[in-house]
Amino acid sequence: MAAFARNQWYVAAYGREVGRELFARTVLGEPIVFYRTESGDVVGFADRCVHRRYPLSESRLDGDRIVCGYHGFTYDRAGSCVFVPGQARIPRTARVRSYPVVEQDSFVWVWIGERELADPAAVPRAPWLADPAYTTVSGMEPLAARYELLVDNLLDLSHETYLHGGYIGTPEVANTPITTEVDEDRGIIYVSRHMADAACPPFYAKSTGIEGRITRWQDIEYRPPCLYLLHSRIAPVGVLPEEDGADPGGFHVEVVYAITPETEHSTHDFWAVARDFALEDQSVSDFLAENNRTVVLQDVRALDILERVIATEPEGYQELSVNIDTGGLAARRILAKLAGERVQVVPS
Amino acid sequence: MAAFARNQWYVAAYGREVGRELFARTVLGEPIVFYRTESGDVVGFADRCVHRRYPLSESRLDGDRIVCGYHGFTYDRAGSCVFVPGQARIPRTARVRSYPVVEQDSFVWVWIGERELADPAAVPRAPWLADPAYTTVSGMEPLAARYELLVDNLLDLSHETYLHGGYIGTPEVANTPITTEVDEDRGIIYVSRHMADAACPPFYAKSTGIEGRITRWQDIEYRPPCLYLLHSRIAPVGVLPEEDGADPGGFHVEVVYAITPETEHSTHDFWAVARDFALEDQSVSDFLAENNRTVVLQDVRALDILERVIATEPEGYQELSVNIDTGGLAARRILAKLAGERVQVVPS
Amino acid sequence: MAAFARNQWYVAAYGREVGRELFARTVLGEPIVFYRTESGDVVGFADRCVHRRYPLSESRLDGDRIVCGYHGFTYDRAGSCVFVPGQARIPRTARVRSYPVVEQDSFVWVWIGERELADPAAVPRAPWLADPAYTTVSGMEPLAARYELLVDNLLDLSHETYLHGGYIGTPEVANTPITTEVDEDRGIIYVSRHMADAACPPFYAKSTGIEGRITRWQDIEYRPPCLYLLHSRIAPVGVLPEEDGADPGGFHVEVVYAITPETEHSTHDFWAVARDFALEDQSVSDFLAENNRTVVLQDVRALDILERVIATEPEGYQELSVNIDTGGLAARRILAKLAGERVQVVPS
Repeated sequence: MAAFARNQWYVAAYGREVGRELFARTVLGEPIVFYRTESGDVVGFADRCVHRRYPLSESRLDGDRIVCGYHGFTYDRAGSCVFVPGQARIPRTARVRSYPVVEQDSFVWVWIGERELADPAAVPRAPWLADPAYTTVSGMEPLAARYELLVDNLLDLSHETYLHGGYIGTPEVANTPITTEVDEDRGIIYVSRHMADAACPPFYAKSTGIEGRITRWQDIEYRPPCLYLLHSRIAPVGVLPEEDGADPGGFHVEVVYAITPETEHSTHDFWAVARDFALEDQSVSDFLAENNRTVVLQDVRALDILERVIATEPEGYQELSVNIDTGGLAARRILAKLAGERVQVVPS
Repeated sequence: MAAFARNQWYVAAYGREVGRELFARTVLGEPIVFYRTESGDVVGFADRCVHRRYPLSESRLDGDRIVCGYHGFTYDRAGSCVFVPGQARIPRTARVRSYPVVEQDSFVWVWIGERELADPAAVPRAPWLADPAYTTVSGMEPLAARYELLVDNLLDLSHETYLHGGYIGTPEVANTPITTEVDEDRGIIYVSRHMADAACPPFYAKSTGIEGRITRWQDIEYRPPCLYLLHSRIAPVGVLPEEDGADPGGFHVEVVYAITPETEHSTHDFWAVARDFALEDQSVSDFLAENNRTVVLQDVRALDILERVIATEPEGYQELSVNIDTGGLAARRILAKLAGERVQVVPS
Repeated sequence: MAAFARNQWYVAAYGREVGRELFARTVLGEPIVFYRTESGDVVGFADRCVHRRYPLSESRLDGDRIVCGYHGFTYDRAGSCVFVPGQARIPRTARVRSYPVVEQDSFVWVWIGERELADPAAVPRAPWLADPAYTTVSGMEPLAARYELLVDNLLDLSHETYLHGGYIGTPEVANTPITTEVDEDRGIIYVSRHMADAACPPFYAKSTGIEGRITRWQDIEYRPPCLYLLHSRIAPVGVLPEEDGADPGGFHVEVVYAITPETEHSTHDFWAVARDFALEDQSVSDFLAENNRTVVLQDVRALDILERVIATEPEGYQELSVNIDTGGLAARRILAKLAGERVQVVPS
């Protein structure tokens, strides 16, 4: 199992999850308490009182201050202690660590690592999720599995045919070869599968209204460690984008995952589906939300099983990798580099 | 705790448990998937896809082939991979390990160890379980305890008086001395307790119809590691077998246990009771099935307690062994020899 | 985490918990079975049969003898084995360890350590609990946290304001400075907080009938490792004891805790509240019982949370201690001395 990649931005929550109640979430093993200040900013602190480690998320807000629920140590919105019970003097070191936070594209991003290295401009983008030209459904499912298993899963969509048959999988997905490109400088992995003439899975038939066979493009763009984009284009067979890039005949779905390790053996699996058609049609939104959640839960079930296998059978096991794994193996390599590790990847 | 005895046959299931659905069972820590082929044979494979270790028991059958439920790797009934998604070439090493299997005496036996050492003729016999001259009731209870505790339990029947009082235990069982013989060459342990004049436990009174006191013989024959036979004879006091061995006045019950380690701390406790009387009487079958299951569950409860004691109090503890333990101590010694270990057994 | 202090008396139970049924309780990791003999004495033994470690608490009494529920090994009230199944000879070493036990002040005290060092006269006293001049309510709550967390909790009552606000906490408790004294020779810690003019918490207002503000004294006397006394005095503002010590204008509540480690990560949290007023008023008893149990359960919830924090985040963490922690830090030091350890305590 690879170590975590630190000094990175991770999605900790949707903006809608964080309000005027204390909100606890663990990211890369670090327990963090978030809340929204009276002025509307999201702030995040180490979720442990400096006194006796009591979780501040078990405490209460007093304006923008957190009052520890055990002995009343009180912290301001910068994390500085401003009250200690039974004495006037505040110890100089009484301060909880605050985390750099950016709210963008509907997500609350948090920087895990050295504070001074955090660059808000470097937060990766998923602009569709907050773009009025798109309608988005989204959710988060807790995964009782290490994040690497979700990365593997998402970078090899051939599993759609087997694990998600009847939903998003059709035989063409598993049988169409992929192309994989790695931008080593920027650390981005691209995996593409362009099906010129494919069955239309019910998932898309119902939401686009297309009857008959389709041209189906799946263009994965994975920006390790956290952000995974699947640019999905569906059109009737033979309908391609125009020369200038305009694509009035295509239906576009931007599938976004944020893969955030919670602990070594659990992951926050954020998923969002943004579409550029049927924008006001609530029945399409409901259909996509329910179906994508079903697909995510199929993955969750399978990966939870796999985690138990891996966690309880630790001895040296040689995986057998094939062509479909090219993207996943590249991802492992880049993740290991980000985590400061070397891995040995042995393709078959 | 002794290591497992490998290169041995173990009962993995009743034949009736294995059909055209994939059936998972772990034996000696090895996860195995079983199914019955279209021609009716039982086959068993390592329950892990060679690609990413996904349990094949979570997959589906296509004729006699298993199609992995994650990415569709497909295996034939010999365990050879015959399909890989996204490519035509099948890697030479893509093969799941198959297990030697023998279906006999109502059991599915599996060989755990080196395949080339498996000799189907060496599977130990419990012929009554599939003999029309006997009627059998049987079951399997999962035991959250190491198998050694069940061996100890079954080789010392004095516990019947205390743990199973009111069922199969009477004071005579605990108070009658035993004789123990060990066939070192064949590795078989015999423990006998012959009660010439004993109370008839309700368990037997109801099923045989005997009123009054009985002659009760208990002849244990343990064939380590897996098969335990209790040849039980009941007759009215003084009624003995004839000189030529014929025994028209006796009631014979063959109690069979198969003791199969699941993990280091859990065991499959197979039990069967075959009788040579009241063959067609369903009420006797129902009575024996319910009562023997109750007795097994009393053992399960006690051994689960004992496992928690032993597992959570690991420090050096000196057991105190007495005469009744002679058979159990011999069993430990033989099991340790089978497992390639030496044990030091200190009788009091 | 400090080791346990052995060679000490610990409260194992209330006398009312132990009768003619076998009663199991683990103290300092040692499983003990208690029962009351036919003559009414409480006796305690190691809760493991010498034969195969079966818990004797799963067994039954025959007069004053314990008959093991597995194989019938039988022990007399001194712990000597008097019956072994299947043989007449009793092995010389067949004896379960018996524990020194004293029943006093409503508690069953047990000596954990070397038997010959046990001095019944050294059992610490809480005489109010069995004194007809007081009425007592009491209980025991299981705590899934190490005992040190409960010691910390009870020696710093400033947490009453935050964790028990609305019950026993008021702002004055957290804001009034404490005085701490340590009797190093006798190993006793005293922490006092005298509030001359304080709000009367509902807990006391309802039980004493005092209206308006009060003089409130909290005098803690902790006798490590097990016994914690809180001498609590409430009176209308300005009403003090008379010069000769008589105190007809004061209401006295003796709050007694017995802090008994069960395992390294769990504790028996015995609590009792004895009062010298409204002795016959059942509604006051009911009110105090319900309210104090609520307060104890608030502590239990918080300490269980803290235990999970400490147990799962083991890396070097520097607590920040302030004035209110003086008593708790002294307690840690004395407990470590009793346990034969050195601790380094770094006040801020």
